[in-house]
Amino acid sequence: MTQSHSLQEIADFLGAELRGDPACRIKGLNTIEHAATSELTFLASKAYEHFLSTTQASAVIVEERLADKLTCNALVMANPYVGYARITAWFDNSLDTVNGVHPTAVVADSAVLAKGVAIGPHVTIGERVRIEAGVNIGPGVSIGNDSTIGSGSRLFSNVSVYHGVSIGRNVVIHSSTVIGADGFGFANDGGKWVKIHQLGGVEIGDNVEIGACTTIDRGALGNTVIEDGVILDNHVQIAHNVRIGENTAMAAYAGISGSTTIGKNCVFAGQAGAVGHITVGDGVVAMARCTISKSISKAGSYSSGLLMSETTAWRKNAVRFGQLDDMARRLRKLEKASQT
Amino acid sequence: MTQSHSLQEIADFLGAELRGDPACRIKGLNTIEHAATSELTFLASKAYEHFLSTTQASAVIVEERLADKLTCNALVMANPYVGYARITAWFDNSLDTVNGVHPTAVVADSAVLAKGVAIGPHVTIGERVRIEAGVNIGPGVSIGNDSTIGSGSRLFSNVSVYHGVSIGRNVVIHSSTVIGADGFGFANDGGKWVKIHQLGGVEIGDNVEIGACTTIDRGALGNTVIEDGVILDNHVQIAHNVRIGENTAMAAYAGISGSTTIGKNCVFAGQAGAVGHITVGDGVVAMARCTISKSISKAGSYSSGLLMSETTAWRKNAVRFGQLDDMARRLRKLEKASQT
Amino acid sequence: MTQSHSLQEIADFLGAELRGDPACRIKGLNTIEHAATSELTFLASKAYEHFLSTTQASAVIVEERLADKLTCNALVMANPYVGYARITAWFDNSLDTVNGVHPTAVVADSAVLAKGVAIGPHVTIGERVRIEAGVNIGPGVSIGNDSTIGSGSRLFSNVSVYHGVSIGRNVVIHSSTVIGADGFGFANDGGKWVKIHQLGGVEIGDNVEIGACTTIDRGALGNTVIEDGVILDNHVQIAHNVRIGENTAMAAYAGISGSTTIGKNCVFAGQAGAVGHITVGDGVVAMARCTISKSISKAGSYSSGLLMSETTAWRKNAVRFGQLDDMARRLRKLEKASQT
Repeated sequence: MTQSHSLQEIADFLGAELRGDPACRIKGLNTIEHAATSELTFLASKAYEHFLSTTQASAVIVEERLADKLTCNALVMANPYVGYARITAWFDNSLDTVNGVHPTAVVADSAVLAKGVAIGPHVTIGERVRIEAGVNIGPGVSIGNDSTIGSGSRLFSNVSVYHGVSIGRNVVIHSSTVIGADGFGFANDGGKWVKIHQLGGVEIGDNVEIGACTTIDRGALGNTVIEDGVILDNHVQIAHNVRIGENTAMAAYAGISGSTTIGKNCVFAGQAGAVGHITVGDGVVAMARCTISKSISKAGSYSSGLLMSETTAWRKNAVRFGQLDDMARRLRKLEKASQT
Repeated sequence: MTQSHSLQEIADFLGAELRGDPACRIKGLNTIEHAATSELTFLASKAYEHFLSTTQASAVIVEERLADKLTCNALVMANPYVGYARITAWFDNSLDTVNGVHPTAVVADSAVLAKGVAIGPHVTIGERVRIEAGVNIGPGVSIGNDSTIGSGSRLFSNVSVYHGVSIGRNVVIHSSTVIGADGFGFANDGGKWVKIHQLGGVEIGDNVEIGACTTIDRGALGNTVIEDGVILDNHVQIAHNVRIGENTAMAAYAGISGSTTIGKNCVFAGQAGAVGHITVGDGVVAMARCTISKSISKAGSYSSGLLMSETTAWRKNAVRFGQLDDMARRLRKLEKASQT
Repeated sequence: MTQSHSLQEIADFLGAELRGDPACRIKGLNTIEHAATSELTFLASKAYEHFLSTTQASAVIVEERLADKLTCNALVMANPYVGYARITAWFDNSLDTVNGVHPTAVVADSAVLAKGVAIGPHVTIGERVRIEAGVNIGPGVSIGNDSTIGSGSRLFSNVSVYHGVSIGRNVVIHSSTVIGADGFGFANDGGKWVKIHQLGGVEIGDNVEIGACTTIDRGALGNTVIEDGVILDNHVQIAHNVRIGENTAMAAYAGISGSTTIGKNCVFAGQAGAVGHITVGDGVVAMARCTISKSISKAGSYSSGLLMSETTAWRKNAVRFGQLDDMARRLRKLEKASQT
């Protein structure tokens, strides 16, 4: 928590042009509004430009066009928000420096752990699991038989990974998240449900981040697939045999039903979802609470849902929604009458 | 993972009529499109009928009327999808064969465990808990005082069962799911919330399946009840004193508010819900995102929510929704004027 | 489970006026409909008034105006529901009486535990954690470095608290809930996501209750804040740098996006939410599935979403929604024509 870096070091790491004192020591990051001496900040939004002249920060990451307005040190970059994102890694003190396997961890004899892994207390690692170098596994995590965790990945406390799950490199998985639980597959036999045992697995690519209390179900036959660079927020649901394309982002409560394929670079806002057995192309944006109800090949933004209003006004309109088809017919009738 | 079964064994188990080689060995299951030699598949949808003549499977579960189109072995049944569901159990290798109580499990002296139970690492079992034969409890599960788990049930890693919860036979509960947490009950005393301690429990019947990250709250007074054969997906919320009738199915994010009774053989699609203190009869289907806002006695399908459209078009219509009552009044006025 | 209290003791605790036998022993609580001899009940809703003359309870908490209708003992209070809420604490047997640190718990040497704490099996407590008197921590809980838990708080099994989280006094947190996971912050660098390490923490006030499978993310820079007396149900999502004002209540699946401030004494019904970077004033009520899409300063009730109808009728109206802007224009045109 007391790390400090010179502005020169930071400029070199970011590939930014340094205007000011290269020896200036930076002890932390903060917002442009709240930053104090020895702190670095950034300007990524017009709404905050008026703080450029008043910020107490020791340095600001800015675009070229705004650098002149600064009275403190400047790190000039084309995309200051990306610069800020990259330098946060230097000030993250979340990782314990402990290494090795905690004595309370239960590791199957047939599991293979690379050197330099950190396995926390009360972890359970199943048969034939393979864990690569630099992996950090938090307290209470369970890894099922035959699963693999790629190098540099981090699983926070109480994550559950079932058997036969393949996780790539530099993947982050937050607490209470469940990878590889059974997909929701049942056949109806005269009113009673017969379970379809889920015989597939889950494949997660590299550089994927998965939030807390999120679920990615195993495939029924064949795998559920999360491609490289996907980011999922908390409470996301990915059903069996779904495929999520590279660099797609999904906010909280986004839910994708079974056997649906989502393209690359899509964005699902909060509570957006997609029904099962459809294909959504690259670059589709689903706004909050949008249900994608059929296949989409055209990139762009899609919505369903309603705007907010005061409840008294809303109720009148909501009641009218139930009369909408009738209203449309009556309108058509009036139009016809007026044309005669 | 190397189990294999003769087609005759499978036909006998399913009660299917075998047409072809009874000695044919089946090593796995697959879709009709992707199946290879030594694999069994099934045909349950018209959309896949064209694969009947090209599938590489060694055998297909089919209806009588399609059996002739096959060039490989056939297992003829009235409902091939049920046949497929039932045979998946033979190819499920998710269950560890280990038995007994892991030395790291903490089991209260007053707990009673039947013979043949499997209790995983880091499990905690409270006072007076009763666990019947054949139960399998995964790593990190916690079972509160006075709870019972019926024979053949399976709890995956990191499930939390509170005190005073009764779970039936052959129940499956997936990871991070919480059974018996306090219902959300508070009295408002001049702006401050006074907790209503939740003094009831939870009763779960036989053959119930509960997904991951799902919550079933304990009753305030009296129990929350899940009847036999209910299936719940991930992220489902069942509030205090709810009753869910036999064989009802609920998809991800379905949520039932307090003291509501749901009938038998209902289906709740994703994010469908019901408000509190109502009664929903048997055979009701709530479509995705439908809020059941009052009691329903009539079986059938119910909806709320909107269809998806491109955001630019949607926005125009969504703004008009706020004018809908006004539009209805103006339409009425025009009609009156035209009648004079 | 065999505790019993005299009616006089209960009346004294509640500050209620006792009419009847002060020595009457109360062994439990129940609803007015189902209560039996030796049970106490309450009347808080007109819908149950007809049970006043038939209840088998030994005593009823009632308002003054209804006390005469009772044939059994009465505890007279202005707000019987609050009286009921307060007395439930006396009949709650959920808390183990065990104290001390379970031998399987892993507690860092630098952690400071007050006397009289109860730390369950398989718990992990990080470096420099401070746990105050009377705290009860259930099995499998993990507390990250530098976090603090105030006196009298209770964390149920498998809760995950990350590093740098401050939890106040008399806080209740239910199972699988995650406090302090990373906020969902990423910068887009030419299509790829660059993680913004989340350097802030979480502050939770006193007398807060948090349900199961709920997530409260740590701040990006600065803290996420939950003020005193807030109550959150299951599956709630509080994003990074959100502030929730005192005594605000949120039901299941309520979700607040990043950097939004919610006022005091607000109520969010199930699946209600708010977009990011807005301010919602005190006393705002968001009805079920309402998305608060802009700042609100005026107290009152807000809605979005639609009423339920049968699917066949709904579908016709939902299709018309896509024609609504067109209908509005055509209506305007007819109006103009009729005025000429």
